[in-house]
Amino acid sequence: MKSTIAIQGILGSNHHKVAQLYFGNEIQLDECLSFDALVHSLIHGKSDYAIMAIENTIAGSIIPNYALIDANNIHINGEYYLNIHHHLMALPNQTIEDITEVCSHPMALLQCKEFFKQYPHIKLVEDNDTAEVARRIQEQKLKGTAAIATKTAAELFQLHVLSAEIQTIKTNATRFVILQKEKPSNGIDQIDKASLRFELDHKRGSLATVLNVMSDCKLNLTKIQSLPIIETPWKYAFFVDVTFEAYEDYTKAISILEIMSTSLKVLGTYKNQRNT
Amino acid sequence: MKSTIAIQGILGSNHHKVAQLYFGNEIQLDECLSFDALVHSLIHGKSDYAIMAIENTIAGSIIPNYALIDANNIHINGEYYLNIHHHLMALPNQTIEDITEVCSHPMALLQCKEFFKQYPHIKLVEDNDTAEVARRIQEQKLKGTAAIATKTAAELFQLHVLSAEIQTIKTNATRFVILQKEKPSNGIDQIDKASLRFELDHKRGSLATVLNVMSDCKLNLTKIQSLPIIETPWKYAFFVDVTFEAYEDYTKAISILEIMSTSLKVLGTYKNQRNT
Repeated sequence: MKSTIAIQGILGSNHHKVAQLYFGNEIQLDECLSFDALVHSLIHGKSDYAIMAIENTIAGSIIPNYALIDANNIHINGEYYLNIHHHLMALPNQTIEDITEVCSHPMALLQCKEFFKQYPHIKLVEDNDTAEVARRIQEQKLKGTAAIATKTAAELFQLHVLSAEIQTIKTNATRFVILQKEKPSNGIDQIDKASLRFELDHKRGSLATVLNVMSDCKLNLTKIQSLPIIETPWKYAFFVDVTFEAYEDYTKAISILEIMSTSLKVLGTYKNQRNT
Repeated sequence: MKSTIAIQGILGSNHHKVAQLYFGNEIQLDECLSFDALVHSLIHGKSDYAIMAIENTIAGSIIPNYALIDANNIHINGEYYLNIHHHLMALPNQTIEDITEVCSHPMALLQCKEFFKQYPHIKLVEDNDTAEVARRIQEQKLKGTAAIATKTAAELFQLHVLSAEIQTIKTNATRFVILQKEKPSNGIDQIDKASLRFELDHKRGSLATVLNVMSDCKLNLTKIQSLPIIETPWKYAFFVDVTFEAYEDYTKAISILEIMSTSLKVLGTYKNQRNT
């Protein structure tokens, strides 16, 4: 039976691309028009896996998505890095001078901000998905409106690319995580990376102590992000990613950290997609 | 002579509020419609100080603003925490049913996302500033358009509040930094916080070692954020804030860290606005 993969966006979106690259073509898609809807699809059993952008070069971590994973107790089962290419597209025969409005996902708008400085007459409008705007332009024959989307979306919805590669940073890698509802049962030999969340009191050296344990247990830190906890001032939450060579090193570190920190939570253990 | 303060936005914006609370009313404003323009004003001597939002509860750090401070070699001279209140406002006699479009700063749109889920017919449009939209609605008598802005903006531009406190998280604190071009000459007794940036090779335990030094020197970590360096994979940059009681402790730590890390940079030393 084909797996159903929930993606943010529709056919032709970057999430769709990741779904294909990660799971192959034998999949069914559940197209979701927000990250909330994506998580909803997963926890209500409408999909087997969900794909979610989690950090990128320009904006850093997408903190609200970390919060979604944490609050809904879903699990990270894998990751994928994709270089994002944004192209400006509209109906054939439209020129950039005809365009008065560009609709796209807020993250795409942010990543192309520099490009639009030369076109102050163009209004930037937030929308649910990059590809969905491309489809709408074709379906409703919208003149004056352009989409920021992938080459695949341009082909799928027969739009003309007005300007290619309009993202500010040309090597614009976005990290996606693959999520599932139940705790994944990855084989130990498939696991060399983990995403953790823990809280620490605001006490001098508390984070250093935790990182010392990780280092002593031969864990490599690949990401760290502190976040104030809204309800409890002066307590901090940390989102941390670590890689490791031996699974036993990881389990040893976890058993120590469980004693040292309040509310340690393993968001997922999975295969590192990048070779460090 | 009155100091000139560059703010993101116009009279009635949150940046304006911070300018008043931090510097008092005897100031001149340089109203800038982007963070880029704000930094431009400062480095070209059009303003003495600039005020810039740097992190908030929902989105976390505003990474592009850290990059702006770093790339332009400007200095953090102070900080201010403000609880942000977003109100939806339009011309008098307009109801929420009349509204088809809400224009505001992307950060304000993000912070009010939940509220607008009940009004799917309303289009969210990115704009340069919260208050500037309020002014435009009044000046051009725009019907069907609403702004998300402060109470002050509603009063200044005679708009009617359709819905108050529409931000998703009610205690929505945003941290602002006060920037200046030259290195500030704050007295040592006025300094108990510092913002640092440093780079580390991707080597196990390298961050733990740095944090150990900080802890040994009695520095408290209040924020940490890792960021991959785009051009050099497997090298990481860290933005860190620390507080301390004795200035000598801080200088001691810095002299050790200068030896240990590549490209340590002090983004600013200043007075902690929060009592920890």
